[in-house]
Amino acid sequence: MAKRSLPRHVGFIPDGNRRWAASRGLSKEQGYGFGIDPGLVLFEICRSLGIPEISIYGFTQDNTKRPIPQREAFRSACVSYAMEVARRDAALMIVGDETSDLFPPELRGFRTRQGNGMKVNLLVNYDWEWDLVGLREGNIRSHDVSRLDLIVRWGGGRRLSGFLPVQSVYADFYVVDEYWPDFKPEHFDQALRWFREQDQTLGG
Amino acid sequence: MAKRSLPRHVGFIPDGNRRWAASRGLSKEQGYGFGIDPGLVLFEICRSLGIPEISIYGFTQDNTKRPIPQREAFRSACVSYAMEVARRDAALMIVGDETSDLFPPELRGFRTRQGNGMKVNLLVNYDWEWDLVGLREGNIRSHDVSRLDLIVRWGGGRRLSGFLPVQSVYADFYVVDEYWPDFKPEHFDQALRWFREQDQTLGG
Repeated sequence: MAKRSLPRHVGFIPDGNRRWAASRGLSKEQGYGFGIDPGLVLFEICRSLGIPEISIYGFTQDNTKRPIPQREAFRSACVSYAMEVARRDAALMIVGDETSDLFPPELRGFRTRQGNGMKVNLLVNYDWEWDLVGLREGNIRSHDVSRLDLIVRWGGGRRLSGFLPVQSVYADFYVVDEYWPDFKPEHFDQALRWFREQDQTLGG
Repeated sequence: MAKRSLPRHVGFIPDGNRRWAASRGLSKEQGYGFGIDPGLVLFEICRSLGIPEISIYGFTQDNTKRPIPQREAFRSACVSYAMEVARRDAALMIVGDETSDLFPPELRGFRTRQGNGMKVNLLVNYDWEWDLVGLREGNIRSHDVSRLDLIVRWGGGRRLSGFLPVQSVYADFYVVDEYWPDFKPEHFDQALRWFREQDQTLGG
């Protein structure tokens, strides 16, 4: 049971945008815009640490059943984030069902990975079932996403909510109670410190 | 976001048998036998509460790479547990690859569910990949196991370790730091109390 150092692939579930907005007297959809800058800070931290790959839960097909103003807000936040990360020379790949109207056309070009920097996988109009039924044609649809070592979720929820089920099978799961727009670099420092203390067994 | 009452399906990951044995100066394989009685107590608690279905992580194909005395010990503990649960009129189903030599022949008859009591799914020689690649022939191999509401893991690990990835997608995950052979009914009471406080969103 070897102790680990740095995770090679970290997943992020940036939850709590709507609860954050409501707690400040804003309308729920206003929360998503406040999630972009924290995501860019986290991107820069991961890059400076030399983490080779990160995956971020943007939005799911289930999420698109929410009221239109919310749908528009998280869609727009994901597009802004993706464009900025691409501009910063990440190796961006968007993972999600691009055959649906709910997939932002601006992101079509990133369904296959572009660029040579840190790998960033952004889940957009993603659905775990859509992902897995790819096996019927030979492989899961997210087959270019590697196995996750660590998953960090904001907003207090202790569940995966359909986040990359295959890549998550052996991942350590760290929960931050604060809402995502209240992100602080210390949250991720603490997650990494905790991760280093865990034993890696992979079932052996 | 409705508050929940009782989970309809709970998963149990009874981890920490070997660490428990080592902490008592026993050899690692001696830990597994001490996991049987706690499992029967937990079975009776779930049945008395009226929980309709439980799933228990017995052993995986990865686990069978461990030293032979350990392999024999957890195999034998799983057979004893299964037989006793069947005798107590549970609707037992064993989920795992029965085409391998590592599958206990005594349990072959339970690969399809037997009985009409509380549903008990025991994972024996299970492997998440074996489960999912069933999709290539139409469906996952554990398709008779329903979606999990709550997963409780003993032994402090905050990861699924390949436990029923499809059924776990929306499950709330509760971790008990004590090793499994140190199970106390209060652990499950606390998990249920915590579960009732969680919001159920299912991505909506």
